[in-house]
Formats: sequence, C-alpha cells, structure tokens
Amino acid sequence: MTTTSAASETPATAATADPKVDVGALGRLLLGRWSDVRLEARRLSLDPLIRRVPGESMREHRDRVVKALHRLVELGVTGRAFPKRIGGSEDPGANISGFEELVLGDPSVAIKGGVQWGLFGSAILLLGTDRHHDAWLEDVMTLRIPGAFAMTETGHGSDVASIGTTATYDPETEEFVIHTPFRGAWKDYLGNAAETGIAAVVFAQLVTRGVNHGVHAFYVPIRDPRTKAFLPGVGGEDDGVKGGLNGVDNGRLHFDRVRVPRFNLLDRYGAVAPDGEYSSPIASPGRRFFTMLGALVQGRVSLDGSATAVAKLALTIAIRYGDVRRQFAPERGAAETVLLDYGRHQRRLLPRLAEVYAMNFAHEGLMRKYHEVFSGAADTDEDRQDLETLAAALKPLSTWACLDVLQESREACGGQGFMAVNRIAPLRADMDIWATFEGDNNVLLQLVGKRLLTEYAKRMSKPDAATIRAYVADQVEEVVVGRTGLRQLGQDIRDFGSTARRVGWVRDTDSQRQLLTDRVETMVAELAQALRAGKRMGAEEAAELFNRHQNDLILAARAHAELLQWEAFTDALDDPGLDADTRQVLTWLRDLFGLGLIERGIGWFLLNGRISANRARAITEYIDTRLLPRIRARAVDLVDAFRFSDELIGAGIATGEERARQDEARAYYAAQAQTARSEAPTV
Amino acid sequence: MTTTSAASETPATAATADPKVDVGALGRLLLGRWSDVRLEARRLSLDPLIRRVPGESMREHRDRVVKALHRLVELGVTGRAFPKRIGGSEDPGANISGFEELVLGDPSVAIKGGVQWGLFGSAILLLGTDRHHDAWLEDVMTLRIPGAFAMTETGHGSDVASIGTTATYDPETEEFVIHTPFRGAWKDYLGNAAETGIAAVVFAQLVTRGVNHGVHAFYVPIRDPRTKAFLPGVGGEDDGVKGGLNGVDNGRLHFDRVRVPRFNLLDRYGAVAPDGEYSSPIASPGRRFFTMLGALVQGRVSLDGSATAVAKLALTIAIRYGDVRRQFAPERGAAETVLLDYGRHQRRLLPRLAEVYAMNFAHEGLMRKYHEVFSGAADTDEDRQDLETLAAALKPLSTWACLDVLQESREACGGQGFMAVNRIAPLRADMDIWATFEGDNNVLLQLVGKRLLTEYAKRMSKPDAATIRAYVADQVEEVVVGRTGLRQLGQDIRDFGSTARRVGWVRDTDSQRQLLTDRVETMVAELAQALRAGKRMGAEEAAELFNRHQNDLILAARAHAELLQWEAFTDALDDPGLDADTRQVLTWLRDLFGLGLIERGIGWFLLNGRISANRARAITEYIDTRLLPRIRARAVDLVDAFRFSDELIGAGIATGEERARQDEARAYYAAQAQTARSEAPTV
Repeated sequence: MTTTSAASETPATAATADPKVDVGALGRLLLGRWSDVRLEARRLSLDPLIRRVPGESMREHRDRVVKALHRLVELGVTGRAFPKRIGGSEDPGANISGFEELVLGDPSVAIKGGVQWGLFGSAILLLGTDRHHDAWLEDVMTLRIPGAFAMTETGHGSDVASIGTTATYDPETEEFVIHTPFRGAWKDYLGNAAETGIAAVVFAQLVTRGVNHGVHAFYVPIRDPRTKAFLPGVGGEDDGVKGGLNGVDNGRLHFDRVRVPRFNLLDRYGAVAPDGEYSSPIASPGRRFFTMLGALVQGRVSLDGSATAVAKLALTIAIRYGDVRRQFAPERGAAETVLLDYGRHQRRLLPRLAEVYAMNFAHEGLMRKYHEVFSGAADTDEDRQDLETLAAALKPLSTWACLDVLQESREACGGQGFMAVNRIAPLRADMDIWATFEGDNNVLLQLVGKRLLTEYAKRMSKPDAATIRAYVADQVEEVVVGRTGLRQLGQDIRDFGSTARRVGWVRDTDSQRQLLTDRVETMVAELAQALRAGKRMGAEEAAELFNRHQNDLILAARAHAELLQWEAFTDALDDPGLDADTRQVLTWLRDLFGLGLIERGIGWFLLNGRISANRARAITEYIDTRLLPRIRARAVDLVDAFRFSDELIGAGIATGEERARQDEARAYYAAQAQTARSEAPTV
Repeated sequence: MTTTSAASETPATAATADPKVDVGALGRLLLGRWSDVRLEARRLSLDPLIRRVPGESMREHRDRVVKALHRLVELGVTGRAFPKRIGGSEDPGANISGFEELVLGDPSVAIKGGVQWGLFGSAILLLGTDRHHDAWLEDVMTLRIPGAFAMTETGHGSDVASIGTTATYDPETEEFVIHTPFRGAWKDYLGNAAETGIAAVVFAQLVTRGVNHGVHAFYVPIRDPRTKAFLPGVGGEDDGVKGGLNGVDNGRLHFDRVRVPRFNLLDRYGAVAPDGEYSSPIASPGRRFFTMLGALVQGRVSLDGSATAVAKLALTIAIRYGDVRRQFAPERGAAETVLLDYGRHQRRLLPRLAEVYAMNFAHEGLMRKYHEVFSGAADTDEDRQDLETLAAALKPLSTWACLDVLQESREACGGQGFMAVNRIAPLRADMDIWATFEGDNNVLLQLVGKRLLTEYAKRMSKPDAATIRAYVADQVEEVVVGRTGLRQLGQDIRDFGSTARRVGWVRDTDSQRQLLTDRVETMVAELAQALRAGKRMGAEEAAELFNRHQNDLILAARAHAELLQWEAFTDALDDPGLDADTRQVLTWLRDLFGLGLIERGIGWFLLNGRISANRARAITEYIDTRLLPRIRARAVDLVDAFRFSDELIGAGIATGEERARQDEARAYYAAQAQTARSEAPTV
C-alpha cells in the first residue's frame, strides 16, 4: 500500500550467515527521540524514595509517594510541559517520556505525578487561559497546590458527557455554584482526593440563564491547605485499598452548593460573561466537548508508553531467567535443559518479545505525533483527530499486552515469579487498572471503529475510479471466495509441491502488509454494509442493529491497531543506524510479529479465502522451525537492547542469582558422577 | 462416539416458548454430591476469623490465618480424610469439597489448611503406615503439630525426581542423615515453613549402602515446639511478600546433616531394614516414584475445584453489576443502556459463564473419581492413572480460566472492579499462583499429551479392524482435504442457500462432539506420525524433534481437556432433576460452550477441512444473534443458581448499592426532564 521497505527485503549490505545484534545501536533506536530524558528518569527511578518497597503498607506507601513527588520537584523535572515564563520548558514530548519511565521505579509515583502535573496541571494549562496559568500553575508545578482531577463520577466514567455534577452561574454574586445532585454524581477514583489534594479541577454541567451548556472545567479549592480539613460544603471519602497502585490516595468528592468565583471557570473553550451570557469559540456543543476532552489525550499517550516500559522489564526478567534456569534432562546423566531451549517456552516468550518491540516503535510514533500537536508544530484539527484516534487505538493493545506479558512472565518464572522481590507480580497488580482508566479499552476501540466507519463512508461518498474498481472487484470476488474458497484453492495450486514458494511468500513484507491491510478494509466494508440498513430504521431498532455488530466493530478496530503496530515496526527496519546483521535479526523479529498476527487471526484469513491451507501451515512451520530458534539464540541481546541496568531490573533471578545456583549445582553433580551409584528414576 | 444425549435434543417434556430457569433445581445440580459440606463451608467462610480483610498487612494476615486454622479445628472439619480410629471420618470427597469452598472466604486460609491437612497430613497418611498415623496424625489434625510439605526446592519444582536433598542411611545408629548439598537444593515456597511449622515431611534422595533409590519422604522435626527456634542443623528463610496469598507463611528450609530415626521414613512404598537393605513393594523405581507422587493428586483436584468456585463468584459479581449498571443512552433523553445489554459485554461475560458451568460439571466428575479411588471403592492402577490424567487435564484449564474470568470481570466492573471491597482484584492476586503450583500448567498438559500418545500407540500396536479402517480412511482423506479443502467444499455444496440446515447442524450435539473428538484424535495421530522418526534417532536428536513439537503436544492436550469439559457439561443435561425449561436453557449454555470452543479453534477446523466457511460463519452468527440474547435474558438466574448469599458475595456493587444509585439518578433526571433546557451534547 505504501512504499515497500526495501531494507527489510534486501539490506544494502548483506547480513552475515550468523548475524549478531549490535546491542548499542538497537538500544538507541528503541530509546527514540527523547532518549536522554528516558535514561535520566530511569536513574531517578533508583532513588530510594521513588522505588517501590515490597510489602509496605498502604500508609507507608502513600507517605513515601508524597515524598517522592517532592523529590521530583527538587529535581526540577515537573514543569517540562509548562510555559517558560513560569519556569517550565514547553517540551511536551520530553515531559511524557520522563514520566513513562518512572513507572519502572514505582507505578504509584508515576500515576500520582501524572495526576498532579499531567491531569490537574494540564487541565489548567490547556482548558484555562493565561490568567489561570498565572494564578495557579507555578504552585501546581512545585506542589504547593496538590490537586485532583475531578472528572469521573461513580455513575459515569466512559460517558463523561452525562456526568451529573452541576455548576450553575449566579449573576448576582458572579459565582458558580458547584453541586452534586445525587450519590451517583459523586466524583470518584480521583488520585489526590483522599488525602493530599487542596484543590480540584471539577468537571460539571455548566448551567447559566437556565440553559445547560454541557461539561466544563472549574478550579475548586477543596481543603484548607494547613489543616487539610474539607472546606465548607465539600465532602468526600477515601476509596481505600485497591488491587494495586496503593501509593496513590484515590478518593471521592461531593459538593453541596459550593461557590467559586466566575474567574474559576477554565474558559478557553467556553466563557460566561458577568451577566451570565454564554459564549464559545466553538459553535457546536458536540465539537466543543470533544475539543476539551481531546486536550487531555496525553493521559492515554503516557499509559501506552508506561505499559510498554513495564512489558519490556517483565520480558527482560523472564527471558534472562529462562536463559539460565534448567529443568529436566533429555536423558539420564545429561545436562538439564535450559528453559528457553524448550519449544513451548519459546512460543510463550518470543512472540511477546516481538509484540513488545512493535509496541515500542508504535509508541515512538505516537509520541512524535503528540509532540507535534502540543508543541504547535503541526496542530490542525485533522492532526488532533489523528492523534486521538492513534492514542485510542494503541493504548488498549499495549495495556492489555502489558498484563498478558506480565502474567506469562510470572508463570514462566514459576514460584520465583510470584515473589515480590522479583517484581513481576506487584507490577501486575499496579498495571491492572491501565486497561480501564483514561478510557476503558473496549470503549476506546469502539471509538476507533466508528472513526474507521466514518472514513470509509467518506471514501465511498465521493469515490474515485480506483476506489470503485477495487471495491467492485472485491465484492465480486468476496461472494465467489466466501462460498467456495476458490481463491485459496488458487494459492494451493500455485504452491503445490513448492515449499520454498510458500515460505518465501509468508516472510515477504508485502504479503504481510497485504494480508493485514486487506483484513481491516474488508472488516470495515462488511460492517458498513451490515449497518447500512440502520439508516432506514427508527433510533431504537438502529441501535439494536449496531449493538449486534458491536463486537465486530471492536474486532475491526483491533485489527486496525495491529496493522499500525506492524507498520511502525516495519518502518523501524529502515533506520540508518542499524548495520546489516542487526537489521536482519530485527527483520526476523518483525516477521515473527507479523506472522504471529496472521496466525492468531488465521480463522478470519481462511474463512475469507485470503490464504490457503498450505500457506497457513507454512506460517506455523516457519515460526516453529526457523524464526523461534533464530530469535532464541539472540533473545538475551534483544532484551539487553532495552538498556535496563541490573540495578533497575532489580530481580535477583535475572541478574546473577540463578546462574550462580545452577553453576554450583552442576559442579556438585559433576563431582558426584565420579563416585555415586544411582537407581533413582529419570522422568 | 458415546451415546447421544437424547435429553439435550428432544426433552421428554417440551420446553415452553420462553423457558424459565428453575434456580433451585439447577443449584442442586451444580452443588453436586457433597452439597451439604459445600454449603456448610460457605457458612464457615463468613466467620470474621476466616474472611479476608482488605488491606491487612502481611503480619496481620498471617496471624489471622493461624487463628482461622484453629477455628477449623474447633469446628471439627479438619479430619474428614483421616482414619476413623484417630477421630477422622474417612470421607475424602467431603474433605476436599469443604476446603474448596473456603477459598470464598480467604484463599490463604484454604491454602494454609491445604498445606497442613492436605499435603503435610496426607503425606503421612498416604506415604506412611499405621505406625506413622498413630504417632502423628491426631496431632496434625488438631494443629498440635503444624507442619510443612518440603518437596519443592529452589532448583527443582516440576522435575521432582531431580531434587538435590539427600537422606543417607547410617546403619550404625539406625538413622537417616538429611542433608542439603547446595543452595539450589534448599526447600522453597513451603507453606508453614517461615514461621509456624514445627515439623516437615521432607522429600529427599534415599541413599543406603551407597545406592540412591530415588525420592522418598521423611518426617523431620524442624522447630522447638515452644520457642519456635530451628532445631540444630536446620535453617531457613522467610519467602517474604508474595504477589498474593500473604496469609500463608511460605519459606525456605535447609538441612546440615540432620539425623532422624529410621522410623521417620514414610515407608509405605519403600523401606530400609536396620542393616540398610532397601525393599519396596514396587520393583520399578520409575513406577514407585509415580505411585508416591500420585498419592498426592488431591492437591490438583482441590485446585481445580477452588479455581471453579472463585470463577463462579467473580462472574456473579460482574453479571449482577452488568445487569444494573447503565452507561450511554442510545439517543438524547432515552434511558441509558444496561451494560449487559451491549453485544460486546455479552461476548465478554456470557461465554465465560458457559465455561464456568463446564468447569463445575467437569470438576464434579473429577471429585467422584477421586473419591472412588481414595475411598477404595474403585482403586485399580488404571483408576489411579485415569484420575491423575484427568486432574492433570482439568487443573490447567480451570486455573487459567479462573484468572481470565477474574480479569474480565474486573475490567467489566471498571474502576469498581479495582476496589478491594469489591473482592475481584484481591482474589486475582491470590489465585495467580494456582497456574503454577501443585504442577505447572504447561508441564501438566505435557503429561496429558504424553499419555494421549501412549494410548494412541497402544491402540495402533494391536488395532482391531475398525480402528484400521477409520485410520486409513482418515489418512487418505487427510491428504486430499489438506491440499484442496475438498471436504469443506462438500459441506458448502450441501448447505448452499439453506441457512436452516447450517444452523441446525451447528447446534446439534453430535456435530459438536464429532468436531471436538475428531480434533483431538487428528492432532494426536499427526503428532505420533511426526515423532515416529525419533525412534531411529539418537537421544539428543530425538529430544530436539520432540521439542519442536512440544507446543503442538500441549495444544493437543488442551483440546482433549476441552472435550472432557464438553462431555461433562453434556452429561449434566440428562440430570433427571431438571425440568424441560431449565434443560432447554442449560442446553443453550452448553451450545455456547461447545460452539465457543469451535469458534476459538476455527483456524484448525478450517485448515483441516473439518468445517466449511459457511458453517463457520453460521456458528458466529448463531452465537451473536441467538444464544447470547437468550442467555443474557437468563444470566442473573444462571449466576443465582450458584447459590451464593449476598453476604458471601460481599461486593456491594453486586448486592444492591449500584441499583440504588441508578434508581436515584433516574428519578432525578425524570424530575429534571419536566423543567430544564439543555444544549449539552449527547455522544
């Protein structure tokens, strides 16, 4: 579809027969544009105040995390996204990159920091104007004003537009009255709300002159800065113990007719005049709402990156352990086999390694896009929409993959994986919430799916000749293929007897791209066709029709996101910093990712006649007999390229302890073999 | 293959057009044979000493769990598996059933109890003889001797035969010398070892007269009962904080030439005479080893049951919440949609509900088999082998499914799912280790796979005429089908244009059975063929060949276990206690399970020409448009049939809180609708 990645097919310089990984060069590629900030943040993560302590109580954890945030202020890293005139550096990409890596120290520190500077502070920055920045941002940056981001309510998370809290303008006193009308409208799950926050950005339905203008954000003091007691009219509760992230003091807030000055409306996208007249630079209430929410996309961007960072750490631990841990000997007296030499163990860890590489490269692209938009370098409406769709597509895949990688890594390390000192299990507990906060993964994918449908409708409403030709051809072929499997039969006849041809085809970059692209396009076209009937239906019936296809819509969005990851990985192969050997190894890893996607979705490809049975078999065989052994031989290099120091990894089983135990045991048995006689069974 | 389940096709009395679930009758069927014990254990789980307390520290947790165990002693439920003459009731099925349900109170209590009575006590019971029972069992039952089960070592978990600890007989003093020769041979992850245990059953290589006779079990005192100090020569460490189960004091033990009397060898399967002569009722060292290990199968049985119990609880919470929680309205002013009415939400939760039913019925079969063997009712070698294979097949599937169900339930409850008070997240942390303890899931499935290969080889070595006929036909057809997809083309031609025929076929019990059975048989036959070349190879080359098929072997074992679950579910449909309506609903749920298995493995079925593209599509359509809506309408009844009281469920979101909040919010908006004007967007 786009230009073929020439490098991945025929490297300028040919790779050697047994290609070696240039760990340094690959490491630079993985670290990306903000490498200095990332490496610095990893060093900061080693600070005892920042690093997670296994088994600390919620009390201890919360207290330490507060200190960690003050430490970050001391280090001067909390204002990177803020204006220069208040002491910031106006570098949004660097800001997010740094916070993403802090998760390697303690996810609670990264998230509490994210609440303070990324949500609370950014809301003031991006929804407010200069007057608001001057009033509060410096104190936010320096933690003199710890604050909460009060958007979500107990009753409404995903559907922010339907929150119940109201802010009613009173022209008599030129104040807004913030009010919680029922229990479900309590603000909930807010970091900093249970204990530390003295203010909050509260999202509420703005009502003036009897008209509700929809959700707007208000700066609301909530606690006395000295006594930490709630201010009059404000109440709340501690969310208490959570499944993880217990260093963050999540809590609930409610308001009983709390008055704030008119000034406190963050009025960049909607203002109220002293007399109560409402005005906005954006006429459409819907577009206004999405613009305001879109300003806060950085939360999703940073979750994509921090999930990727943790997945890299977990795989580093599991692969390094699997490279030295031995269990079962092939025959009596032989050396026991190293776990990572087992076919099943390779199947468990190496495709996930490929996936994590894809996540890394896709995230780098997302970060660049984010930085362009928020630094103002490329900030059109379309740029913003693309950024939001990209974030909505990548965040679900990376956060789910992170949990999956943590779990497989935990199990691959057996009982050791369950010990808190080896880090995987506590990290899994913390990362769990990544799947649903800052946008529930399923809801985000649905957004992406709707965008795909809209794009498709646009293309189809004014189709050029090529589009029509492609579409008609596809339709005709679809019917034939769907009913008889003729296309795959054609592949079989072509390939018959030629293993080389089948294998050559599956590892070809264009074949992978064609299969993955065609899948998304076909899924979307089929959905559009299925939903077309809805246009002639009443609202309820149309909603039901849509609902019966909701799962398919989300699957299409997922396929789209997988394609994005694959394209990002493929683009990375062209990086000029790579030598031919490293590019060859990275191409194998990309092939493992691409073929893994196709193998996982093989049902769809077979069902829709996109691939023949023989080629499908060739994919699995190629993975098992070629790609996995090649990548296994370089697996430790491929995780070393993440450039985590032993100190940062922290898990003893991955940094020498297990190797020492194995060496000692083998020396013992070598000595024994000279003397002892055994009738013990080998099983 | 076996008799067709007539009931599931044509109920004796026809179901009504809108069948209702008889929750009471279905509940009785689900509770199974030991229902009284299960219900009693659920009541016990409400005891404040037994019930998990969110956020308690490891110290508090461990201390409470010790008290909980003493409470169980007071209640007289700790000796059900033990001999009547020492106060037990010799009812192994009741014993396990009770402990399985305790996990609903606190998994740490169930597991610490399991260590004490199920592992430590059972080892004495089953590997020892009457003399040992008389010496220790009563004190074990009453907790006067808390003990550890010291099998696993830091260096060897799955490969028990290769543990490093030695027990060398000294005829001079008639003692065994227990010794840990290197760090990797420390006993590790042992419940009761860090603090409470005063004795341990230690597994060690028995060496006498200079010959190693393999792994045997020894009763070894480890701590002074009063001071709790380690006895001379014994040392150890606390495993510290774990990813969950922190009420269990797991720890490490090591031994420096610790002497125990000859008597302390648990010598049912291997004895040493005073002069050091070794004898055993089982001549083969390999069979002896597996017999000893097989005696301890109950651990796996109980994990299968407790994983099932927790999965039922998690789904109860998520489905009840999904039945009242609302989010997004189909159009402005309309009532918001209940989560469980969304197609995607149904796809997420209802197939898992079907799976959990299958787990429940499969576990009941496993329990009966276990009880027959260990009560002596049916205790041949073959019975034992069948039991072990069944446990090895079901435990991996149910423990993985439990984690999957917990995670999906957590996400389906959004932020609420992450709150400890709603129970799902802490349970997930505790259940994590289920996947690897008492047999790593992958290793267990490999055992099952090897057994399938052995069975296949037996059948093929003395095949009867029918076997040969079937096999040859299959082989011939395989080649044709594999290359051209001819078989599925045949299905397509038969079904062409007839939706009814396709749908009728997919929901037919025999079609489901045929597909699932055929898959296992074909996978095993293909593996056997692929591995045949290994017979002519050297050990190393053969091991490599096997290794390249290890993943396929495990996939075959999984397919086998899924078939077992499906058969158990199908058998349950015949239960005479069900009326026609309930049987109809349960048949839909079984269909969802069976078709879900086929859909998940559709790649294999298409690739191997077992199903046509049209029929594959019919399966997905039938699930989405028929089964899910029907089951959704009865989903709450289907979880109510688990018979968990609101108090036992414990999660407020599932027992009224969320409903009250929704009612209040809707009343507020109904009143508002009379008066307010809104320009807020609906999105």
